[in-house]
Amino acid sequence: MHVLVIGAAGMVGRKLLDKIASEPGALGQDIDRLTLIDVIEPVAPASLAEISATRAADLSDSGVAESLIATRPDLIFHLAAIVSGEAEADFEKGYKVNLDGTRQLFEAIRLEGKKAPYRPRLVFASSIAVFGQPFPEKIGDEFFTTPLTSYGTQKAISELLLSDYSRRGFFDGIGIRLPTICIRPGKPNKAASGFFSNILREPLVGQEAILPVDENVRHWFASPRSAVGFFIHAASLDLARVGDRRNLSMPGLSALVGEEIAALRRVAGEKAVRLIRHEPDATIKKIVAGWATDFDTKRATALGFKAEAAFDDIIKAHIEDELGGSL
Amino acid sequence: MHVLVIGAAGMVGRKLLDKIASEPGALGQDIDRLTLIDVIEPVAPASLAEISATRAADLSDSGVAESLIATRPDLIFHLAAIVSGEAEADFEKGYKVNLDGTRQLFEAIRLEGKKAPYRPRLVFASSIAVFGQPFPEKIGDEFFTTPLTSYGTQKAISELLLSDYSRRGFFDGIGIRLPTICIRPGKPNKAASGFFSNILREPLVGQEAILPVDENVRHWFASPRSAVGFFIHAASLDLARVGDRRNLSMPGLSALVGEEIAALRRVAGEKAVRLIRHEPDATIKKIVAGWATDFDTKRATALGFKAEAAFDDIIKAHIEDELGGSL
Repeated sequence: MHVLVIGAAGMVGRKLLDKIASEPGALGQDIDRLTLIDVIEPVAPASLAEISATRAADLSDSGVAESLIATRPDLIFHLAAIVSGEAEADFEKGYKVNLDGTRQLFEAIRLEGKKAPYRPRLVFASSIAVFGQPFPEKIGDEFFTTPLTSYGTQKAISELLLSDYSRRGFFDGIGIRLPTICIRPGKPNKAASGFFSNILREPLVGQEAILPVDENVRHWFASPRSAVGFFIHAASLDLARVGDRRNLSMPGLSALVGEEIAALRRVAGEKAVRLIRHEPDATIKKIVAGWATDFDTKRATALGFKAEAAFDDIIKAHIEDELGGSL
Repeated sequence: MHVLVIGAAGMVGRKLLDKIASEPGALGQDIDRLTLIDVIEPVAPASLAEISATRAADLSDSGVAESLIATRPDLIFHLAAIVSGEAEADFEKGYKVNLDGTRQLFEAIRLEGKKAPYRPRLVFASSIAVFGQPFPEKIGDEFFTTPLTSYGTQKAISELLLSDYSRRGFFDGIGIRLPTICIRPGKPNKAASGFFSNILREPLVGQEAILPVDENVRHWFASPRSAVGFFIHAASLDLARVGDRRNLSMPGLSALVGEEIAALRRVAGEKAVRLIRHEPDATIKKIVAGWATDFDTKRATALGFKAEAAFDDIIKAHIEDELGGSL
């Protein structure tokens, strides 16, 4: 099987590659070719380097999608996007990368299929940003998509295209709406959602972190490990079971910031908790107040997608995957 | 006020123009300029001919949207589309006309607004085809859009773009999801939905009509008069009341084919009903079984949109508007 990963240099892309490298059978079939692309050149896992080709290119640039699809990959992970803040700040770039790039990929597949039969599996990274306030207490599988950002709009449109192209038989697609990934590895960043990870990741290694919102803020989480699990599961899932409704909110954990902190206390003790400094930030509070807090993901759960059931597990996954297994 | 009607030669477009001509104050402001465009040259109402410009052009052709918007219309009705059957038969044409044409219009408005402040009202004709089976008993205002046709996909995507462009302040848009229009004036056509109108329109003038489905088929209707009323109401509605959720399922009448026939009997007698010939058609039955049957349109109703409450009223509207007021 030839696997193409678009957005392979991003955090989820790299973790997905590590998983594929460490569990060769994870995707259900042997991999004999791996193509990795991102706007910066991705790094192939060492054990797969011999069968890998890496490339720095922007999917939304003319001809890029066509050249990727000319190699007829059997399985495509489409993880490439510019993030919410950038898509809001630069309207034209957001539509070019997040909408036109995706559509060009889909069109390249359709047109390749006109030359000779071709119907790859396509797994698309969508987002809970397709939803907009006001929300019900739990967002169910049939709640409508009314995004309040251009990023969410671009993801919702891509989902509709994915469904239609799948229904027409051009590819066999599935859209995966990711919860907020926590604990994000790496350095603290300036994303408004960054603090959800920062207040755990930094204290776990003895560093201070800033909490800009109240402890009673509720949000929707899954670990990087679960996110990778969603993509792996989607890659070999029998999509006949999914039917025509190809875009699924992934399972996650609805938790208060206070519950994050209580879990940190249980796992790493009071000294870790004392490293969290409360510095209320009105701007971040306002942004976060518009985000979804809880979901009822019956369909994804019934289809076998799994996430953590407690924040202790999210923290333990981080310790195992990022900190060598112990504090 | 300068009014632009795109799709002005279609059935709803012509009726909308007749209404504007007969009730000059209907749109809330005086009209001093009217621009009409369609793929065949539209006809301006006689009383507005002096202030009208008509043009045969395809909105999705290069430069057409820009040239229309360069005249900076204050109010835009966007009714242009190729129909469901054609969009399903010709994938590329459907996306070109129904999606790219709409996006080019929206982009032309955004770019015109960069030259000098410009924020027109835009009323978009959407469709209940944005919904796909399985449905709840009544489709509510928060039910998700999972179209099962490329036409429905193109309308659902246009709705998302309309919301985002409105939220960003590029125009002030509203999307109007029309029920099936009944009684459609004119000749019987081959649309799968044609019989809903045919079995009333033809018997009312002493002609035979064919009913290809059972009398217990339920569907969702509004008269052409109500459809025009939706657009007129949307043109001057305070959109602050609509908020960010700019696309609304319009009110309508949920009725059985048997109820259509009972109304025909009450209005035109048994001799009219006897002109309906039952000729079951498995293909049409199957298509119709996938269509929405009932809605709960709380939001549109609260915003003042109105439709008929009984099929007798739909038939009487047809007699008044198309048959000179009597049988």
